[in-house]
Amino acid sequence: MEHEHTIKQYGIELKEIREQLLEMGGKVELMISDAMKSLVERDTALAEATIAYDHQINRMEVEIDDKCLQVLARRQPAARDLRFITLALKIVTDLERIGDQCRNICKHTLHLNKEPALKPYIDLPRMAVAAATMVREALDAFVRADADLALKVCSDDTFVDQLNSQIQRELLTYMMADPSTTTRAIRVNAVAKCLERVADHATNVAEMVIFMVKGKDIRHTA
Amino acid sequence: MEHEHTIKQYGIELKEIREQLLEMGGKVELMISDAMKSLVERDTALAEATIAYDHQINRMEVEIDDKCLQVLARRQPAARDLRFITLALKIVTDLERIGDQCRNICKHTLHLNKEPALKPYIDLPRMAVAAATMVREALDAFVRADADLALKVCSDDTFVDQLNSQIQRELLTYMMADPSTTTRAIRVNAVAKCLERVADHATNVAEMVIFMVKGKDIRHTA
Repeated sequence: MEHEHTIKQYGIELKEIREQLLEMGGKVELMISDAMKSLVERDTALAEATIAYDHQINRMEVEIDDKCLQVLARRQPAARDLRFITLALKIVTDLERIGDQCRNICKHTLHLNKEPALKPYIDLPRMAVAAATMVREALDAFVRADADLALKVCSDDTFVDQLNSQIQRELLTYMMADPSTTTRAIRVNAVAKCLERVADHATNVAEMVIFMVKGKDIRHTA
Repeated sequence: MEHEHTIKQYGIELKEIREQLLEMGGKVELMISDAMKSLVERDTALAEATIAYDHQINRMEVEIDDKCLQVLARRQPAARDLRFITLALKIVTDLERIGDQCRNICKHTLHLNKEPALKPYIDLPRMAVAAATMVREALDAFVRADADLALKVCSDDTFVDQLNSQIQRELLTYMMADPSTTTRAIRVNAVAKCLERVADHATNVAEMVIFMVKGKDIRHTA
Protein backbone atom coordinates (compact mmCIF):
# COMPACT_ATOMS: atom_id res chain seq x y z
CA MET A 1 0.00 0.00 0.00
CA GLU A 2 2.75 2.40 1.03
CA HIS A 3 4.80 1.39 -1.99
CA GLU A 4 1.85 1.80 -4.33
CA HIS A 5 1.25 5.26 -2.95
CA THR A 6 4.88 6.18 -3.58
CA ILE A 7 4.75 5.08 -7.18
CA LYS A 8 1.54 6.99 -7.75
CA GLN A 9 3.00 10.08 -6.11
CA TYR A 10 6.12 9.79 -8.28
CA GLY A 11 3.95 9.68 -11.40
CA ILE A 12 2.13 12.80 -10.25
CA GLU A 13 5.41 14.62 -9.70
CA LEU A 14 6.69 13.81 -13.18
CA LYS A 15 3.37 14.93 -14.63
CA GLU A 16 3.66 18.19 -12.69
CA ILE A 17 7.13 18.86 -14.08
CA ARG A 18 5.82 18.23 -17.59
CA GLU A 19 2.82 20.53 -17.07
CA GLN A 20 4.84 23.29 -15.46
CA LEU A 21 7.30 23.21 -18.35
CA LEU A 22 4.43 23.53 -20.84
CA GLU A 23 2.95 26.35 -18.77
CA MET A 24 6.31 28.13 -18.74
CA GLY A 25 6.55 27.57 -22.50
CA GLY A 26 3.10 29.12 -22.96
CA LYS A 27 4.13 32.16 -20.93
CA VAL A 28 7.30 32.54 -22.95
CA GLU A 29 5.34 32.31 -26.21
CA LEU A 30 3.07 35.07 -24.93
CA MET A 31 6.13 37.17 -24.10
CA ILE A 32 7.44 36.77 -27.65
CA SER A 33 4.18 37.91 -29.21
CA ASP A 34 3.69 40.74 -26.70
CA ALA A 35 7.23 41.97 -27.23
CA MET A 36 6.62 42.07 -30.97
CA LYS A 37 3.20 43.69 -30.53
CA SER A 38 4.71 46.40 -28.33
CA LEU A 39 7.19 47.18 -31.11
CA VAL A 40 4.84 47.04 -34.10
CA GLU A 41 2.01 48.93 -32.40
CA ARG A 42 4.39 51.29 -30.59
CA ASP A 43 2.77 50.29 -27.32
CA THR A 44 5.13 51.50 -24.59
CA ALA A 45 2.86 50.32 -21.76
CA LEU A 46 2.86 46.79 -23.16
CA ALA A 47 6.65 46.87 -23.47
CA GLU A 48 6.94 47.86 -19.81
CA ALA A 49 4.43 45.22 -18.74
CA THR A 50 6.32 42.55 -20.69
CA ILE A 51 9.61 43.54 -19.06
CA ALA A 52 7.93 43.21 -15.64
CA TYR A 53 6.39 39.87 -16.67
CA ASP A 54 9.86 38.36 -17.07
CA HIS A 55 9.98 37.94 -13.29
CA GLN A 56 7.29 35.30 -13.57
CA ILE A 57 9.41 33.36 -16.03
CA ASN A 58 12.40 33.62 -13.71
CA ARG A 59 10.33 32.40 -10.78
CA MET A 60 9.05 29.44 -12.76
CA GLU A 61 12.61 28.48 -13.64
CA VAL A 62 13.51 28.31 -9.97
CA GLU A 63 10.33 26.37 -9.13
CA ILE A 64 10.79 23.76 -11.85
CA ASP A 65 14.48 23.43 -11.01
CA ASP A 66 13.57 22.79 -7.37
CA LYS A 67 10.92 20.26 -8.26
CA CYS A 68 13.38 18.37 -10.49
CA LEU A 69 15.94 18.34 -7.68
CA GLN A 70 13.35 17.05 -5.23
CA VAL A 71 12.33 14.22 -7.53
CA LEU A 72 15.97 13.33 -8.16
CA ALA A 73 16.67 13.31 -4.43
CA ARG A 74 13.61 11.37 -3.29
CA ARG A 75 12.70 8.99 -6.10
CA GLN A 76 16.02 7.89 -7.51
CA PRO A 77 14.58 7.79 -11.04
CA ALA A 78 16.15 5.37 -13.50
CA ALA A 79 16.96 5.44 -17.21
CA ARG A 80 14.08 7.06 -19.07
CA ASP A 81 12.75 9.21 -16.21
CA LEU A 82 16.24 10.29 -15.28
CA ARG A 83 16.88 11.49 -18.81
CA PHE A 84 13.53 13.27 -18.82
CA ILE A 85 14.24 15.13 -15.58
CA THR A 86 17.80 16.12 -16.43
CA LEU A 87 16.59 17.36 -19.80
CA ALA A 88 13.82 19.34 -18.11
CA LEU A 89 16.56 21.01 -16.05
CA LYS A 90 18.36 22.06 -19.21
CA ILE A 91 15.20 23.13 -21.01
CA VAL A 92 14.03 25.51 -18.27
CA THR A 93 17.35 27.30 -18.66
CA ASP A 94 16.67 27.80 -22.37
CA LEU A 95 13.13 29.00 -21.66
CA GLU A 96 14.39 31.46 -19.08
CA ARG A 97 16.90 32.86 -21.56
CA ILE A 98 14.16 33.23 -24.17
CA GLY A 99 12.38 35.37 -21.60
CA ASP A 100 15.54 37.46 -21.30
CA GLN A 101 15.59 37.99 -25.06
CA CYS A 102 11.97 39.16 -25.01
CA ARG A 103 12.83 41.58 -22.24
CA ASN A 104 15.72 42.86 -24.40
CA ILE A 105 13.36 43.37 -27.34
CA CYS A 106 11.07 45.43 -25.12
CA LYS A 107 13.96 47.57 -23.94
CA HIS A 108 14.76 48.36 -27.57
CA THR A 109 11.05 49.09 -28.12
CA LEU A 110 11.10 51.67 -25.33
CA HIS A 111 13.87 53.54 -27.13
CA LEU A 112 12.37 53.13 -30.61
CA ASN A 113 8.97 54.41 -29.48
CA LYS A 114 10.56 57.73 -28.57
CA GLU A 115 11.56 58.37 -32.18
CA PRO A 116 9.69 58.45 -35.49
CA ALA A 117 8.94 55.02 -36.95
CA LEU A 118 11.72 53.81 -39.21
CA LYS A 119 9.56 51.71 -41.53
CA PRO A 120 6.56 49.39 -41.37
CA TYR A 121 7.64 46.09 -39.89
CA ILE A 122 6.89 43.12 -42.11
CA ASP A 123 9.61 40.52 -41.78
CA LEU A 124 10.16 41.07 -38.06
CA PRO A 125 6.63 39.93 -37.03
CA ARG A 126 6.99 36.93 -39.35
CA MET A 127 10.24 36.11 -37.62
CA ALA A 128 8.57 36.40 -34.20
CA VAL A 129 5.73 34.09 -35.21
CA ALA A 130 8.20 31.55 -36.60
CA ALA A 131 10.34 31.70 -33.45
CA ALA A 132 7.33 31.35 -31.12
CA THR A 133 6.09 28.37 -33.13
CA MET A 134 9.52 26.77 -32.85
CA VAL A 135 9.43 27.19 -29.07
CA ARG A 136 5.98 25.59 -28.83
CA GLU A 137 6.86 22.72 -31.14
CA ALA A 138 10.17 22.06 -29.39
CA LEU A 139 8.34 21.71 -26.07
CA ASP A 140 5.61 19.57 -27.63
CA ALA A 141 8.34 17.38 -29.08
CA PHE A 142 9.84 17.09 -25.59
CA VAL A 143 6.67 16.08 -23.74
CA ARG A 144 5.64 13.66 -26.50
CA ALA A 145 9.19 12.41 -27.09
CA ASP A 146 8.56 13.16 -30.77
CA ALA A 147 11.86 13.16 -32.67
CA ASP A 148 10.22 13.98 -36.01
CA LEU A 149 8.68 17.16 -34.67
CA ALA A 150 12.01 18.05 -33.07
CA LEU A 151 13.73 17.60 -36.45
CA LYS A 152 11.18 19.94 -38.03
CA VAL A 153 12.06 22.59 -35.42
CA CYS A 154 15.76 22.26 -36.29
CA SER A 155 15.08 22.75 -39.99
CA ASP A 156 12.74 25.72 -39.33
CA ASP A 157 15.71 27.51 -37.78
CA THR A 158 17.09 28.03 -41.30
CA PHE A 159 13.99 30.05 -42.21
CA VAL A 160 14.47 32.33 -39.20
CA ASP A 161 18.14 32.77 -40.03
CA GLN A 162 17.21 33.73 -43.60
CA LEU A 163 14.70 36.30 -42.39
CA ASN A 164 17.36 37.70 -40.10
CA SER A 165 19.86 38.09 -42.96
CA GLN A 166 17.18 39.68 -45.11
CA ILE A 167 16.35 42.21 -42.39
CA GLN A 168 20.04 42.96 -41.92
CA ARG A 169 20.51 43.68 -45.61
CA GLU A 170 17.41 45.86 -45.78
CA LEU A 171 18.49 47.90 -42.76
CA LEU A 172 21.89 48.43 -44.32
CA THR A 173 20.32 50.00 -47.39
CA TYR A 174 18.39 52.32 -45.07
CA MET A 175 21.51 53.36 -43.21
CA MET A 176 23.45 53.96 -46.39
CA ALA A 177 20.68 55.96 -48.03
CA ASP A 178 20.09 58.08 -44.94
CA PRO A 179 22.72 57.97 -42.17
CA SER A 180 20.29 59.72 -39.79
CA THR A 181 18.41 56.40 -39.54
CA THR A 182 21.51 54.60 -38.28
CA THR A 183 20.76 54.52 -34.55
CA ARG A 184 17.23 53.28 -35.11
CA ALA A 185 18.32 50.77 -37.74
CA ILE A 186 20.87 49.31 -35.34
CA ARG A 187 18.16 48.90 -32.71
CA VAL A 188 15.82 47.17 -35.13
CA ASN A 189 18.68 44.93 -36.16
CA ALA A 190 19.29 44.11 -32.49
CA VAL A 191 15.63 43.09 -32.18
CA ALA A 192 16.07 40.71 -35.13
CA LYS A 193 19.15 39.30 -33.41
CA CYS A 194 17.12 38.70 -30.24
CA LEU A 195 14.54 36.75 -32.24
CA GLU A 196 17.29 34.76 -33.89
CA ARG A 197 18.53 33.81 -30.44
CA VAL A 198 15.04 32.81 -29.38
CA ALA A 199 14.96 30.47 -32.37
CA ASP A 200 18.43 29.20 -31.46
CA HIS A 201 17.21 28.29 -27.97
CA ALA A 202 14.23 26.44 -29.46
CA THR A 203 16.64 24.60 -31.76
CA ASN A 204 18.84 23.70 -28.81
CA VAL A 205 15.82 22.23 -27.03
CA ALA A 206 14.83 20.29 -30.16
CA GLU A 207 18.35 18.90 -30.55
CA MET A 208 18.31 17.71 -26.95
CA VAL A 209 14.93 16.05 -27.55
CA ILE A 210 16.30 14.18 -30.56
CA PHE A 211 19.19 13.09 -28.40
CA MET A 212 16.81 11.95 -25.67
CA VAL A 213 14.64 9.95 -28.05
CA LYS A 214 17.35 8.45 -30.21
CA GLY A 215 19.73 8.07 -27.31
CA LYS A 216 22.79 8.91 -29.31
CA ASP A 217 24.77 11.86 -30.40
CA ILE A 218 22.56 13.27 -33.13
CA ARG A 219 22.97 16.69 -31.57
CA HIS A 220 26.34 17.01 -33.21
CA THR A 221 26.08 15.10 -36.45
CA ALA A 222 22.85 16.46 -37.95
CA MET B 1 33.87 -2.58 3.78
CA GLU B 2 31.54 -2.69 0.82
CA HIS B 3 29.86 0.47 2.00
CA GLU B 4 33.19 2.21 2.50
CA HIS B 5 34.21 1.26 -1.01
CA THR B 6 30.99 2.71 -2.38
CA ILE B 7 31.51 6.03 -0.64
CA LYS B 8 35.08 6.20 -1.88
CA GLN B 9 33.99 5.36 -5.42
CA TYR B 10 31.30 8.03 -5.25
CA GLY B 11 33.88 10.62 -4.23
CA ILE B 12 36.06 9.61 -7.16
CA GLU B 13 33.16 10.00 -9.57
CA LEU B 14 32.35 13.50 -8.35
CA LYS B 15 36.01 14.41 -8.65
CA GLU B 16 36.05 13.07 -12.21
CA ILE B 17 33.07 15.22 -13.17
CA ARG B 18 34.80 18.25 -11.70
CA GLU B 19 38.05 17.49 -13.53
CA GLN B 20 36.37 16.75 -16.84
CA LEU B 21 34.47 20.03 -16.63
CA LEU B 22 37.72 21.90 -16.02
CA GLU B 23 39.35 20.04 -18.90
CA MET B 24 36.45 20.94 -21.17
CA GLY B 25 36.74 24.54 -19.99
CA GLY B 26 40.44 24.53 -20.84
CA LYS B 27 39.71 23.23 -24.33
CA VAL B 28 37.05 25.86 -24.85
CA GLU B 29 39.45 28.59 -23.71
CA LEU B 30 41.96 27.32 -26.25
CA MET B 31 39.28 27.45 -28.94
CA ILE B 32 38.53 31.07 -28.11
CA SER B 33 42.17 32.11 -28.40
CA ASP B 34 42.76 30.00 -31.52
CA ALA B 35 39.66 31.40 -33.19
CA MET B 36 40.91 34.92 -32.51
CA LYS B 37 44.45 34.05 -33.60
CA SER B 38 43.16 32.64 -36.88
CA LEU B 39 41.38 35.93 -37.54
CA VAL B 40 44.12 38.33 -36.47
CA GLU B 41 46.96 36.40 -38.17
CA ARG B 42 44.79 35.48 -41.16
CA ASP B 43 45.62 31.84 -40.52
CA THR B 44 43.11 29.83 -42.57
CA ALA B 45 44.62 26.48 -41.58
CA LEU B 46 44.16 27.30 -37.89
CA ALA B 47 40.55 28.36 -38.53
CA GLU B 48 39.86 25.02 -40.21
CA ALA B 49 41.60 23.09 -37.43
CA THR B 50 39.57 24.95 -34.80
CA ILE B 51 36.31 24.18 -36.60
CA ALA B 52 37.31 20.50 -36.63
CA TYR B 53 38.32 20.68 -32.96
CA ASP B 54 34.76 21.53 -31.97
CA HIS B 55 33.91 17.83 -32.28
CA GLN B 56 36.04 17.18 -29.21
CA ILE B 57 34.01 19.70 -27.25
CA ASN B 58 30.80 18.07 -28.40
CA ARG B 59 32.07 14.63 -27.43
CA MET B 60 33.07 15.88 -23.99
CA GLU B 61 29.59 17.28 -23.47
CA VAL B 62 28.08 13.87 -24.12
CA GLU B 63 30.63 12.16 -21.87
CA ILE B 64 30.12 14.49 -18.93
CA ASP B 65 26.35 14.35 -19.35
CA ASP B 66 26.51 10.56 -19.26
CA LYS B 67 28.72 10.53 -16.20
CA CYS B 68 26.35 12.88 -14.37
CA LEU B 69 23.39 10.67 -15.28
CA GLN B 70 25.24 7.58 -14.03
CA VAL B 71 26.05 9.19 -10.71
CA LEU B 72 22.47 10.39 -10.33
CA ALA B 73 21.14 6.92 -11.11
CA ARG B 74 23.52 4.92 -8.93
CA ARG B 75 24.42 7.11 -5.95
CA GLN B 76 21.22 8.98 -5.19
CA PRO B 77 23.19 12.09 -4.21
CA ALA B 78 21.60 14.42 -1.67
CA ALA B 79 21.45 18.20 -1.19
CA ARG B 80 24.86 19.64 -1.96
CA ASP B 81 26.09 16.94 -4.34
CA LEU B 82 22.78 16.89 -6.14
CA ARG B 83 22.99 20.61 -6.77
CA PHE B 84 26.59 20.23 -7.93
CA ILE B 85 25.70 17.51 -10.45
CA THR B 86 22.61 19.18 -11.85
CA LEU B 87 24.57 22.38 -12.22
CA ALA B 88 27.36 20.50 -14.00
CA LEU B 89 24.70 19.29 -16.44
CA LYS B 90 23.70 22.88 -17.18
CA ILE B 91 27.25 24.15 -17.37
CA VAL B 92 28.40 21.62 -19.99
CA THR B 93 25.60 22.91 -22.20
CA ASP B 94 26.97 26.44 -21.89
CA LEU B 95 30.52 25.23 -22.61
CA GLU B 96 29.35 23.35 -25.68
CA ARG B 97 27.61 26.45 -26.98
CA ILE B 98 30.75 28.50 -26.42
CA GLY B 99 32.48 25.97 -28.68
CA ASP B 100 29.77 26.62 -31.28
CA GLN B 101 30.45 30.34 -31.10
CA CYS B 102 34.17 29.76 -31.66
CA ARG B 103 33.35 27.61 -34.66
CA ASN B 104 31.16 30.45 -35.97
CA ILE B 105 34.04 32.92 -35.54
CA CYS B 106 36.29 30.63 -37.57
CA LYS B 107 33.71 30.36 -40.34
CA HIS B 108 33.71 34.16 -40.57
CA THR B 109 37.51 34.06 -40.57
CA LEU B 110 37.52 31.75 -43.59
CA HIS B 111 35.50 34.33 -45.53
CA LEU B 112 37.45 37.34 -44.24
CA ASN B 113 40.78 35.76 -45.14
CA LYS B 114 39.75 35.70 -48.80
CA GLU B 115 39.52 39.48 -48.90
CA PRO B 116 41.89 42.34 -48.06
CA ALA B 117 42.21 43.09 -44.35
CA LEU B 118 39.64 45.66 -43.25
CA LYS B 119 41.70 47.15 -40.42
CA PRO B 120 44.11 46.07 -37.70
CA TYR B 121 42.20 44.33 -34.95
CA ILE B 122 42.71 45.91 -31.54
CA ASP B 123 39.50 45.74 -29.52
CA LEU B 124 38.46 42.34 -30.84
CA PRO B 125 41.47 40.47 -29.35
CA ARG B 126 40.94 42.34 -26.07
CA MET B 127 37.35 41.18 -26.12
CA ALA B 128 38.45 37.59 -26.76
CA VAL B 129 40.91 37.66 -23.85
CA ALA B 130 38.26 39.11 -21.55
CA ALA B 131 35.69 36.51 -22.62
CA ALA B 132 38.15 33.61 -22.21
CA THR B 133 39.10 34.88 -18.75
CA MET B 134 35.43 35.04 -17.81
CA VAL B 135 34.97 31.42 -18.89
CA ARG B 136 37.94 30.26 -16.82
CA GLU B 137 36.92 32.25 -13.76
CA ALA B 138 33.30 31.11 -13.99
CA LEU B 139 34.46 27.48 -13.95
CA ASP B 140 36.93 28.14 -11.15
CA ALA B 141 34.11 29.75 -9.20
CA PHE B 142 32.03 26.63 -9.80
CA VAL B 143 34.56 24.07 -8.64
CA ARG B 144 35.56 26.17 -5.63
CA ALA B 145 31.98 27.25 -4.90
CA ASP B 146 33.35 30.80 -4.85
CA ALA B 147 30.47 33.29 -5.04
CA ASP B 148 32.77 36.33 -4.95
CA LEU B 149 34.66 35.20 -8.03
CA ALA B 150 31.35 34.45 -9.73
CA LEU B 151 30.16 37.98 -8.96
CA LYS B 152 33.35 39.36 -10.52
CA VAL B 153 32.57 37.41 -13.71
CA CYS B 154 29.09 38.93 -13.84
CA SER B 155 30.45 42.44 -13.54
CA ASP B 156 33.18 41.80 -16.14
CA ASP B 157 30.40 41.15 -18.65
CA THR B 158 29.77 44.89 -18.73
CA PHE B 159 33.31 45.47 -20.02
CA VAL B 160 32.79 42.98 -22.86
CA ASP B 161 29.45 44.58 -23.75
CA GLN B 162 31.13 47.99 -23.86
CA LEU B 163 33.88 46.71 -26.16
CA ASN B 164 31.18 45.23 -28.37
CA SER B 165 29.32 48.55 -28.63
CA GLN B 166 32.58 50.34 -29.34
CA ILE B 167 33.43 47.92 -32.15
CA GLN B 168 29.93 48.30 -33.57
CA ARG B 169 30.25 52.07 -33.67
CA GLU B 170 33.68 51.94 -35.24
CA LEU B 171 32.55 49.54 -37.96
CA LEU B 172 29.63 51.81 -38.74
CA THR B 173 31.96 54.71 -39.45
CA TYR B 174 33.90 52.42 -41.81
CA MET B 175 30.77 51.40 -43.67
CA MET B 176 29.54 54.96 -43.99
CA ALA B 177 32.89 56.30 -45.15
CA ASP B 178 33.35 53.50 -47.69
CA PRO B 179 30.33 51.31 -48.52
CA SER B 180 32.62 48.80 -50.25
CA THR B 181 33.74 47.67 -46.79
CA THR B 182 30.18 46.80 -45.77
CA THR B 183 30.28 43.04 -46.25
CA ARG B 184 33.54 42.70 -44.36
CA ALA B 185 32.43 45.10 -41.63
CA ILE B 186 29.27 43.04 -41.07
CA ARG B 187 31.38 39.90 -40.70
CA VAL B 188 33.71 41.52 -38.21
CA ASN B 189 30.67 42.75 -36.32
CA ALA B 190 29.32 39.20 -36.30
CA VAL B 191 32.60 38.02 -34.76
CA ALA B 192 32.21 40.61 -31.99
CA LYS B 193 28.66 39.33 -31.45
CA CYS B 194 29.98 35.78 -31.11
CA LEU B 195 32.42 36.92 -28.42
CA GLU B 196 29.64 38.77 -26.66
CA ARG B 197 27.69 35.53 -26.56
CA VAL B 198 30.70 33.66 -25.20
CA ALA B 199 30.81 36.20 -22.38
CA ASP B 200 27.05 35.80 -21.88
CA HIS B 201 27.49 32.05 -21.44
CA ALA B 202 30.25 32.64 -18.88
CA THR B 203 27.94 35.06 -17.08
CA ASN B 204 25.14 32.50 -17.10
CA VAL B 205 27.49 29.97 -15.51
CA ALA B 206 28.58 32.52 -12.91
CA GLU B 207 24.97 33.38 -12.06
CA MET B 208 24.19 29.71 -11.55
CA VAL B 209 27.22 29.38 -9.28
CA ILE B 210 26.03 32.29 -7.14
CA PHE B 211 22.66 30.59 -6.95
CA MET B 212 24.30 27.31 -5.96
CA VAL B 213 26.39 28.89 -3.23
CA LYS B 214 23.83 31.30 -1.83
CA GLY B 215 20.99 28.89 -2.41
CA LYS B 216 18.50 31.54 -3.33
CA ASP B 217 17.33 33.42 -6.31
CA ILE B 218 20.18 35.85 -6.87
CA ARG B 219 20.17 34.92 -10.52
CA HIS B 220 17.24 37.20 -11.07
CA THR B 221 17.66 39.97 -8.57
CA ALA B 222 21.28 41.02 -9.08
